[in-house]
Amino acid sequence: MENEGKITPWEVEGKIDYERITKEFGLKNIDDELIEKIKGFTKEMHVLLRRKYFFAHRDLDLVLEEAKTNGFFLYTGRGPSGPMHIGHLIPFVFTKWLQEKFKVNVYIELTDDEKFLEPKRRLTLEETRKWAYENILDIIAVGFDENRTFIFQDTEYIKNMYPLALKIAKKINFSTVRAVFGFRNETNIGLIFFPALEIVPTFFEDKICLIPAAVDQDPFWRLQRDIAEALGKRKAAQIHSKFLPPLIGLEGKMSASRPETSIYLTDDEKTVREKIYKYAFSGGQPTIELHRKLGGNPDIDVSFQWLKILFEEDDNKLKKIEEDYRSGKLLTGELKDILIEKLVKFLQEHQRKREEAKEKVKEFKYDGKLAREMWEKIFE
Amino acid sequence: MENEGKITPWEVEGKIDYERITKEFGLKNIDDELIEKIKGFTKEMHVLLRRKYFFAHRDLDLVLEEAKTNGFFLYTGRGPSGPMHIGHLIPFVFTKWLQEKFKVNVYIELTDDEKFLEPKRRLTLEETRKWAYENILDIIAVGFDENRTFIFQDTEYIKNMYPLALKIAKKINFSTVRAVFGFRNETNIGLIFFPALEIVPTFFEDKICLIPAAVDQDPFWRLQRDIAEALGKRKAAQIHSKFLPPLIGLEGKMSASRPETSIYLTDDEKTVREKIYKYAFSGGQPTIELHRKLGGNPDIDVSFQWLKILFEEDDNKLKKIEEDYRSGKLLTGELKDILIEKLVKFLQEHQRKREEAKEKVKEFKYDGKLAREMWEKIFE
Repeated sequence: MENEGKITPWEVEGKIDYERITKEFGLKNIDDELIEKIKGFTKEMHVLLRRKYFFAHRDLDLVLEEAKTNGFFLYTGRGPSGPMHIGHLIPFVFTKWLQEKFKVNVYIELTDDEKFLEPKRRLTLEETRKWAYENILDIIAVGFDENRTFIFQDTEYIKNMYPLALKIAKKINFSTVRAVFGFRNETNIGLIFFPALEIVPTFFEDKICLIPAAVDQDPFWRLQRDIAEALGKRKAAQIHSKFLPPLIGLEGKMSASRPETSIYLTDDEKTVREKIYKYAFSGGQPTIELHRKLGGNPDIDVSFQWLKILFEEDDNKLKKIEEDYRSGKLLTGELKDILIEKLVKFLQEHQRKREEAKEKVKEFKYDGKLAREMWEKIFE
Repeated sequence: MENEGKITPWEVEGKIDYERITKEFGLKNIDDELIEKIKGFTKEMHVLLRRKYFFAHRDLDLVLEEAKTNGFFLYTGRGPSGPMHIGHLIPFVFTKWLQEKFKVNVYIELTDDEKFLEPKRRLTLEETRKWAYENILDIIAVGFDENRTFIFQDTEYIKNMYPLALKIAKKINFSTVRAVFGFRNETNIGLIFFPALEIVPTFFEDKICLIPAAVDQDPFWRLQRDIAEALGKRKAAQIHSKFLPPLIGLEGKMSASRPETSIYLTDDEKTVREKIYKYAFSGGQPTIELHRKLGGNPDIDVSFQWLKILFEEDDNKLKKIEEDYRSGKLLTGELKDILIEKLVKFLQEHQRKREEAKEKVKEFKYDGKLAREMWEKIFE
């Protein structure tokens, strides 16, 4: 089983077989029909959806139905265990796009408690809170609507969530979290309780909740759907993303604890260039001569995959890059240069907005329209 | 094993063998030497201590040492699952006496979360919060110093406790709470986490914490003492009370869910009289003639035991009652009348103070000197 890949919220290892996951987790594929339905609302189509980086869902069709009547709300989050990399940003980029197109509220949870409780992180609570602040800057930089977005971290917002967390927790026993999350007798009692706090925000509004997130968070949502109706509440819908492949190859997800596998959102041009040249796994041939003769393999080339997932939105341009690489006309170094140029431009823009975000933290956490409303509410 | 009695924070059954408990839990008896030491501070001696209703301790000698230098603080609490009866009040009566004699701070936790999470209670969170309010009135009526006492309930004070609760929770795993509390795979994840929140207040001050409480809470304190030093904090000291025997006999503890076993703090004179006449287990003989001839047995007579524990402070008077009952001179009805008179007087006074307490709730929870300080603090 070792090579089959492993997915829990705290571990993603090996080669990820997304078809198998879809089946195993009981998800539905995002097919062209559904994409057309979305387009009916959004007019244009986000590259992450068009290229099926968001590949699977639950009840997204229902969300689109309700979009016409009751409306819906968006919920996503971040475990603040370290600096954010490109892969971490993707669900936020997509969530922001959905917010813009549907004009809905977005709730973003920073689980500073969870990342402290997770033993292998070896982080103090002070550290996870510091990372929460740093990560919030990156999240704000994505461009959310400050009056329709509430960013909160568990240790600060706990009082407002705790009564509902208790009601959720009362419906979940140890057997269940052992089966769903792989908890063991050695798991600490904080982490055992934590799932209740990740579920609370799915009930923040009486509307249906849509969660855009990486697929490793799915166990929380399966649990949410098991207990929602017994609490007189609604099952949440999900739209699941794949993982951005690590620089060093297509397996697993990027890990902030292995710096060479990631491009951080704070990396400068020089660092990006060095990392891509040195670490980005190449589908090219060992020598220029061989490459010209045999061509490269874009399917396993990380630089090409990154362009495909996010950085080259133009289908025609992407197709030309793919053909030229496959034919040997485009060399690995040249392909990397294309990615580097896009990446550096993206990061420079992001870093500029990240600086501006420092002035907006209070707005998103406390003073914006939605934030003010949320601090008045106690969820029960 | 069934007749040996069972003690956890959520279950007390059968005959309680306090000697066995003392040994098993690793407690020390409160002996005359220690009582003399206490008297060195307090001058007079509380009847609950003199008659060894508070029968065992951990580190009480250490607390008395520190009373001369650093000082100490008191912590006790109440699970608000229903109306309070006489037995529930006893630790508060004693804690109040200690506060008065030592001039120290008292922290009183209302575990509205725990009583909601405990499945067999079948209480809603709304109900446990309503009981928290009702119980707080009884607690205030005991006469605590409103500037040295902080009464808080978990769902309200959670934000201030949560960071420290996380640090505590990270040190405790499922195996441990299974062994200490008898939790099972079917236990809900809220109750599994809860012990962290009962431990937090033991660290409210940098001084040593002394906990006067019924002995069924001891598992929490054993856990506290196991982890305190790893958190760079102090082990709490305890002084343990027995249970007030239920009206219907000397086994177990009074249970608010079986009204006939308890005298509620809100019972009126008529109810008290009826309950004592009807239910108070008697050590007397079946007929007056036999009683005059053979005498009664005060050792198993609940009315006598209640007088001994709390209601007849005068040792000489108590001795005369005992002798007269044993000789047959005092009839069961007469013994019951003695108790009823004391009890009714106590309850009338308590109920008067309970009415006045309604004006003081805000003071103890939010506005008193200690309360104001506590709302400013986040424990980490």
